[in-house]
Amino acid sequence: MSVRPVYIIAGVGNGTGTGAATAIQSRASRAQRRSLSNTAKDIVAAGGEVAAFPVKEYNYSAVLDVFNTIKQHKWSSSQEPAEIRGAVWNAGAGVFKNFLDVSEEELQQSIDANITAAFAFSRGAILAFRENPIDNLGKRGTIIFTGATASIRGNVLTSAFAAGKFALRALSQSLAKEFGKENIHVAHAIIDGGILTDRSAERRTGDAREEFKTNQDIRLSPESIAQSYLYLANQDRSAWTWELDLRPAHEKW
Amino acid sequence: MSVRPVYIIAGVGNGTGTGAATAIQSRASRAQRRSLSNTAKDIVAAGGEVAAFPVKEYNYSAVLDVFNTIKQHKWSSSQEPAEIRGAVWNAGAGVFKNFLDVSEEELQQSIDANITAAFAFSRGAILAFRENPIDNLGKRGTIIFTGATASIRGNVLTSAFAAGKFALRALSQSLAKEFGKENIHVAHAIIDGGILTDRSAERRTGDAREEFKTNQDIRLSPESIAQSYLYLANQDRSAWTWELDLRPAHEKW
Amino acid sequence: MSVRPVYIIAGVGNGTGTGAATAIQSRASRAQRRSLSNTAKDIVAAGGEVAAFPVKEYNYSAVLDVFNTIKQHKWSSSQEPAEIRGAVWNAGAGVFKNFLDVSEEELQQSIDANITAAFAFSRGAILAFRENPIDNLGKRGTIIFTGATASIRGNVLTSAFAAGKFALRALSQSLAKEFGKENIHVAHAIIDGGILTDRSAERRTGDAREEFKTNQDIRLSPESIAQSYLYLANQDRSAWTWELDLRPAHEKW
Amino acid sequence: MSVRPVYIIAGVGNGTGTGAATAIQSRASRAQRRSLSNTAKDIVAAGGEVAAFPVKEYNYSAVLDVFNTIKQHKWSSSQEPAEIRGAVWNAGAGVFKNFLDVSEEELQQSIDANITAAFAFSRGAILAFRENPIDNLGKRGTIIFTGATASIRGNVLTSAFAAGKFALRALSQSLAKEFGKENIHVAHAIIDGGILTDRSAERRTGDAREEFKTNQDIRLSPESIAQSYLYLANQDRSAWTWELDLRPAHEKW
Repeated sequence: MSVRPVYIIAGVGNGTGTGAATAIQSRASRAQRRSLSNTAKDIVAAGGEVAAFPVKEYNYSAVLDVFNTIKQHKWSSSQEPAEIRGAVWNAGAGVFKNFLDVSEEELQQSIDANITAAFAFSRGAILAFRENPIDNLGKRGTIIFTGATASIRGNVLTSAFAAGKFALRALSQSLAKEFGKENIHVAHAIIDGGILTDRSAERRTGDAREEFKTNQDIRLSPESIAQSYLYLANQDRSAWTWELDLRPAHEKW
Repeated sequence: MSVRPVYIIAGVGNGTGTGAATAIQSRASRAQRRSLSNTAKDIVAAGGEVAAFPVKEYNYSAVLDVFNTIKQHKWSSSQEPAEIRGAVWNAGAGVFKNFLDVSEEELQQSIDANITAAFAFSRGAILAFRENPIDNLGKRGTIIFTGATASIRGNVLTSAFAAGKFALRALSQSLAKEFGKENIHVAHAIIDGGILTDRSAERRTGDAREEFKTNQDIRLSPESIAQSYLYLANQDRSAWTWELDLRPAHEKW
Repeated sequence: MSVRPVYIIAGVGNGTGTGAATAIQSRASRAQRRSLSNTAKDIVAAGGEVAAFPVKEYNYSAVLDVFNTIKQHKWSSSQEPAEIRGAVWNAGAGVFKNFLDVSEEELQQSIDANITAAFAFSRGAILAFRENPIDNLGKRGTIIFTGATASIRGNVLTSAFAAGKFALRALSQSLAKEFGKENIHVAHAIIDGGILTDRSAERRTGDAREEFKTNQDIRLSPESIAQSYLYLANQDRSAWTWELDLRPAHEKW
Repeated sequence: MSVRPVYIIAGVGNGTGTGAATAIQSRASRAQRRSLSNTAKDIVAAGGEVAAFPVKEYNYSAVLDVFNTIKQHKWSSSQEPAEIRGAVWNAGAGVFKNFLDVSEEELQQSIDANITAAFAFSRGAILAFRENPIDNLGKRGTIIFTGATASIRGNVLTSAFAAGKFALRALSQSLAKEFGKENIHVAHAIIDGGILTDRSAERRTGDAREEFKTNQDIRLSPESIAQSYLYLANQDRSAWTWELDLRPAHEKW
C-alpha cells in the first residue's frame, strides 16, 4: 500500500482566533483539482479521509504538538505513516479598531495567531517536509500563508491586525528564501476583498446580503481561493511563486 | 459554427527587441492546459490554428495595426470573426550596462518595447475585449505582462531596463484597477531568474550549459511560465491575481 | 517660567533587548540641531537636564508606566509639568539565526521589543502628545521608530527579527495615517548598514576595526542618524515624512 | 577667489512639461538653509547669482547641452569655472485621464519629461560631479528627483503619468546604487499631496481656494519641500537617504 499525502489546514475553525488544524489524507491528484472547501467530501468520495485536530489556543507548543499527533494518527485506509506534503495557515482573524481602543489582550491575540503560532506551525511543517523524498514536481512540501490587504498596508483601523500580518509576511519571505534550496515551497497569498462565508454574509442585511452572496464580481469565493492554493501547491520546481494577490474583479484598490 | 477564442502573444520573436505578434485560434479548453511553447502544435493537433503577424518595429501605430489585421484574418477553420480573448506582452529584452555606457538609442529601445508599444498593445487588446461577451469565468479577456526582477528593483546595470520595466508594471497596475470593473483581467508576472531557451543555454559553455539545461531547480522552463499564465487566464472573476512572482526553487533572492 | 519640551528615547541601553527610556528636557532649539548622541552633554551645557527611567523588561505595562513616571518627574530646573514632545523607539536588537535555530524564547524577545513594548510606547506617547498645544511647526509631538533592512525584507537569517521589524513598520504606518490629522507626526527610519558603536567596532579586529571606525563611507555614525531624526522632528506640518532610509555612501544594496 | 558651487534646478518653468533649467551659483552655506523658492533673492542678497538656461523641449541632446552651457557660463562674480554640486529634477507634470483617452502624444510627453530628459539630465550631472573633489560632507554632488504618489502606485487616471514616474524612480534607484561608491548622492522624494503654487490655488474657487492657501495642514509649501531637499543635499556620507515621502499633516493616504 503506497504512502498517501497528508495536507494540514490551520484556521478553518470558528474564526474567533482559536481555530483548528485539519489534516486531510488525499488519494488522488484529481481530487487536488477541486476546491478546498469541498475537499472533505471530495476526498471521502475519492476514498480519502479527513480528520480534525483541534488546538485549545494559539500558543507555540500546542501548535507544534499537533504535528506529532498527526504523524501518529492511524488512518483507517492506510498502514503507512503519514507523509505530510502541504500546510496552509489561515489563522489570524483581524481586529479593526482605532489604535487607542485596541486592548493589550487584542494585540496579544493578533501576535499569537499571526506570529507565535505561525512560527510553530512553520517549524512543524518544515521538520515534517524534510523527511519526505522530492516528488515529481520537485518538492518536499508546500506551505501557504493567507495574508490580507493589511499584510502590505497599515491603516487607521488596523494597527494590531497589520502588525500581525506584516510579521507573517516577513516569516513567509524568510522561509521561502531559506528553504527553497531544500525544495520546500513557501508561498504567501494576499486576499484583498471580502470572502463569502456564512458569517460574512450574515453580517449584511436585505439586498446587500443577497448581492454579496450572488455577485461573484464583488467578493471572493472560498472555492476560488482554494483553486489558487492548489495551483501553488502544484507548481513545479522551475517556477515557484512566493506571493500573489487575489481580489474580486470589481474590487476598488 | 461557434466562435473560437484567439490569443495574441507578443514578443516570441528573435528577442532582439523587434519581435512578432502571434495569434492563436484555440479550439478547446483542454489545449489551454498545455504549455504555451508547445501551444502551436497542440493547437494544430487539436484542430486549431496558429498565425504570425510580424511588426517591423515597436512603435505605437504598428502595434495597434496588428489588432486590425488579426481581426480581419480569415482563419481556415472558421467563418466567424475572431474573438480575441487573451493578450500576452513578452517583449522588451533588457540592456545590462553601466549607466554611462547606455546610449540614447539603447534607452529608446527600452522605452519603445516596454512603454510605447506596450501602451498600444494594451489599447488594442482592451478595445477588442470590449466587444466580447462575458464568458463563463466572468471575463471579457485577459492581458498578461511579463516583468522581471528589474520591474521592482533598479540596480547598477539596469537603469534603462528597469526604467522600462517599472513603467510597464505601472501600466499593468493602472489597467488592472481601471478595467477590472469591466471584467477585463490584467496581470503582471515578475520572472526572477534565467529562462531556459536555446539562446540562454548557448551563452553558457561546457558543464554549466548542461547543468542549465537539465537542472530544473536553477532556471525557469518556458512551459512552467506558460502554465502560470494559463492559470491566470483561467482565474474566475471572484479571485483575480494582478501580480505574482516566478522563480526556480534554488534561486537566491 | 515657561514649559520646556521633554524628549523620550527608548532603547539606548545595553542593546540586549531590555534597554532604558531616557527622557531629556530640552531648553533650546539650538540644542536640537546637535546630535542625539551628544545631546546629554549639550543639553546640560545649555542648561537642560537628562534623566534615565529604566524598565526591567519589555512588557506592555512596564513601558506604559514609564510615561507616568516621566510626567511626574520633578525637573530641578522647572516648576512646570513635563510637556513630552518627542519619542524615539530604538529598541529591538536582532537575532540572526537560521529559522530552525530560533528558539521560542528568542522569537518572544523579538515580539516583546518590536511589537508589544512598541505598542505600549506609542500609546504612552500619543496620550501625552494629545495634552500638548500645537506648536509653531504645527505639531503636538513626533514619534520616530528605528527600522532596519529587515523592516522591508525577510531573509535566511532574519525570520524572527524581520517579523518584529515588519510589525513595527506596520504600526508606524497605521499611526501615521490615524494621528496625522491630530497633528501628531509619526516617522519610520530604515537603517540599512552597520552603525558605529563601541560594541559594533569591538566585534571587528585589526585593520577591519580601524577601517570601520574611521571610514565614514562604510558605516553609519550615530550622530548622522540623530541629525536625520532631528530633521524629522523639525519638519513643519506642510511636509511630513513617514519613511526614509539611511545608509552609508558605499553600502552595497 | 575660491570656487563657488552651482546648483541646477530643472522644471521650475511654466509647468506645461517643457520647463527650464536654472543654475544658481551659491556663496554660503547659510544661504543653503533657506528655501529653494526664495533661493534666487537670497542668493543675490548674499552676493550670489542666478541664471536661467531654457531648453526648447525635453529631448536627450537639448538637456545634455545645458550642462555644457552652464559650465561655460561666465559668472560676473567669479573668474573660476563652475563647480556643479547639485541637480534637482522637478520636471514631468502629469496627465490625468482614463487610459483610452490618453493620446500617443500625451504618452510621449510623459516619456520625454520623466525618462528621456531625466536620463540626459542625470548623465550631465554625473559627468559634472565626477570632476569635483569630495567635499567636507563626503560628496561630489547630489541629484534629487521629484516623484509623486504615482511613482509607487498606478491608478485609474494615471497610466501615462505613473509609467513615467515609476521609470524615474527606477532610474534614481539604479543611480543611487551605482554612484554611491563614487560619493555621488542620488535621492528620490515622493510628494504625496497638492503643492501650493499660484496655479494650483487658481484651480480652486472661493472658500476652497482660501483654505488651500492658508491651511498648511492640507497642502505642501514649496518652501517645506525645499527644506527637505536642502536637508538631503546636506546629509553627510555616513547616512544618505535614497527615498523619502512628503505629505501634509492631514493628508489621507
